[in-house]
Amino acid sequence: MSLETGHQVRKTSRRMADGREIIYYDDTPPFPKREAVDVRPLPPVAGASTEMRYDPLTGEWVSLAVHRNDRTLMPPPDQDPLAPTSPGGFPTEIAEASYDVVVFENRFPSFSPRAVGPAGAVGPAGAVGPAGPAAGDPSRQPEQAPPDGASPRWAGGSGGLVDGDPLWPVRPAFGRTEVVCFSSAGEGSFGSLSVSRARTVIEAWADRTAVLGAIDGIEHVFIFENRGREIGVTLPHPHGQIYAFPFVPPKVARMLEMAERHRAKTGGNLFRDILDAERRAGTRVVASSEHWTAYVPAAARWPVEVHLAPHRDVADLTGLSGAERDDLARLYLNVLGRLDRFYEGPEPLPYISGVYQSGRDIFRLHLQVFSVLRGPGKLKYLAGVESGVASWVSDTTPERIAARLREVA
Amino acid sequence: MSLETGHQVRKTSRRMADGREIIYYDDTPPFPKREAVDVRPLPPVAGASTEMRYDPLTGEWVSLAVHRNDRTLMPPPDQDPLAPTSPGGFPTEIAEASYDVVVFENRFPSFSPRAVGPAGAVGPAGAVGPAGPAAGDPSRQPEQAPPDGASPRWAGGSGGLVDGDPLWPVRPAFGRTEVVCFSSAGEGSFGSLSVSRARTVIEAWADRTAVLGAIDGIEHVFIFENRGREIGVTLPHPHGQIYAFPFVPPKVARMLEMAERHRAKTGGNLFRDILDAERRAGTRVVASSEHWTAYVPAAARWPVEVHLAPHRDVADLTGLSGAERDDLARLYLNVLGRLDRFYEGPEPLPYISGVYQSGRDIFRLHLQVFSVLRGPGKLKYLAGVESGVASWVSDTTPERIAARLREVA
Repeated sequence: MSLETGHQVRKTSRRMADGREIIYYDDTPPFPKREAVDVRPLPPVAGASTEMRYDPLTGEWVSLAVHRNDRTLMPPPDQDPLAPTSPGGFPTEIAEASYDVVVFENRFPSFSPRAVGPAGAVGPAGAVGPAGPAAGDPSRQPEQAPPDGASPRWAGGSGGLVDGDPLWPVRPAFGRTEVVCFSSAGEGSFGSLSVSRARTVIEAWADRTAVLGAIDGIEHVFIFENRGREIGVTLPHPHGQIYAFPFVPPKVARMLEMAERHRAKTGGNLFRDILDAERRAGTRVVASSEHWTAYVPAAARWPVEVHLAPHRDVADLTGLSGAERDDLARLYLNVLGRLDRFYEGPEPLPYISGVYQSGRDIFRLHLQVFSVLRGPGKLKYLAGVESGVASWVSDTTPERIAARLREVA
Repeated sequence: MSLETGHQVRKTSRRMADGREIIYYDDTPPFPKREAVDVRPLPPVAGASTEMRYDPLTGEWVSLAVHRNDRTLMPPPDQDPLAPTSPGGFPTEIAEASYDVVVFENRFPSFSPRAVGPAGAVGPAGAVGPAGPAAGDPSRQPEQAPPDGASPRWAGGSGGLVDGDPLWPVRPAFGRTEVVCFSSAGEGSFGSLSVSRARTVIEAWADRTAVLGAIDGIEHVFIFENRGREIGVTLPHPHGQIYAFPFVPPKVARMLEMAERHRAKTGGNLFRDILDAERRAGTRVVASSEHWTAYVPAAARWPVEVHLAPHRDVADLTGLSGAERDDLARLYLNVLGRLDRFYEGPEPLPYISGVYQSGRDIFRLHLQVFSVLRGPGKLKYLAGVESGVASWVSDTTPERIAARLREVA
């Protein structure tokens, strides 16, 4: 890859001992050859029995990935599975003795290319698709409930019915989940990267969006970072994740639906109109640059929440120019620095950060970063109201959040 | 109130020092008079500035209740605000020296009858309603986005626009949030009640459903219990909560939508058909009685999850017969006992329990109880996938959950 702005990244794809793919994204010439061989005696990669079931109460698919309950939890520092493998040392997921940015298939996938079908509790294979709640209504979460079980979207095996009942379609949870190591350092997060390395991660994200999005059966690529023990992070190594979903997940489907309604009503692009309105109002803008603006949305639901939006109509990461990627690296690092200064406390801010994108023009790429911390040592819990009926109550206001984020520039 | 099955409850409404309502539900004759006066020098009750903003990205309303950040957190046992007030002792929220079950308005409301309008950042009062995304589509979350700002649903004051922009309607967060004290004991949860006292709580719930549901501007009554520090419970006193919403919250709106689609497609009632299918399959039924069945749903998303459904078409608690209420008290206590034996550990299971109901025939009342604990000491966190895009991955299967719950009868 040669980038417009001169930032060069070389991509090398390799296989791990159990057949999973690992991809090196190198940004430091002279580029090493990446020929190290993963010689670990690994068990067969999990994921074959991963299934997803259709929930008739919500119209959503729930993935069942039983093997995930065995995933690695906070290992001691000398057993960091995301570290490079030192010669003679503890063998990690990454066979090379050094790396810049590396992406590999998750050993404990929630969606798997190896999913071959439900292992039990199913009716006749390939008998049906979902109960068809979305039939005749293609604008509504279309990928969540395709009307025909034989659709090529359903790659990876055939499906059936839980207990033979048409209310409960079940499918192999086909897809792919990846780990993105931001750095070979043992601790940190996206915010501890240099601008150049952050730029490489963005390059890797864009590449994954293109590659995964082109796989038959993949309907959505969601890129995210969980940061902090408070939200259950199991490894302190700076890393993010990518989920390549076999359906458009509910929140994105909902945003697409809202964008369609807005287009029908006003002729405009919802995301562009929101950004323009935020820039016009100015009261919640945190920082901006030539190509991007960071703002607290007018109806922020989290105690700390920032959205980063590009100034141009771009549906996904692949559509960003080199200059826009450069600019995103700088502005995103700027925002993450402010987040860590939001509260006066010794601990860095726990957060969830996601890249929202779509293959559809009606959408606009943007990032959302939010935190469950509502004060030093005080968490917002997702209890009866949030988890029970999906309604949100904020203990602060978007304007207060923005004022504080401007203060800690 | 005189109940079919002989269980008698007497209701007495009183006012607290700051004007909030408190309602005693007594089930122990001879019924005391409930004349104690709350003489605390309380500050004016909060809630006037509570507002809700329309989120154009999701079509949902977000409540902003800044005063809630000051709410009471885990007080010492001798300062339990939900205890009765001993003569000469620490004055609590309940002026009486004893009580059976008591309900009162939350001092830190998320929705308030005193909400009079946004305090700032708004445009002309009463200028507009929301941007009308649901206009012309009354089947889709109708109460979330009424087309007309002058609608009588919007009791409690006028609204406006954040920064004068039609993308961002803002309204007083009119509604009412209540605390339900299950018992005068200092610690416990619904599961520690006797059948008779549980029956009284159900009576109180049904009464609140009727009273709150009849208020102009209230569109939904959600009754729930959060149990356990792991999900942020701030008081160890056995209690639940009630939210009287000025809109149908997203998850309930979604269930109504799915029920409508199912009716259009099959002519059937979605909830009845799911219950019938679960009873036919039997593989996930945990326990049942004459009028109710408890089962793990076929697409359970939580590590532990049980639904309790009545055998008859009943849209809300007010429609239950005395015998059905009796039966619910027994079966629910039975299920809660199993939940506490689900994992072998010293701590009781943290859970969220909700009563799902509607004024509409297409709905069927049911309870959902679920836990974030995926193993002893291991929490399921709602991170990038769940909080980011509202998609769910389970680490277990509904059949395993049901098998364990049957085992710990």
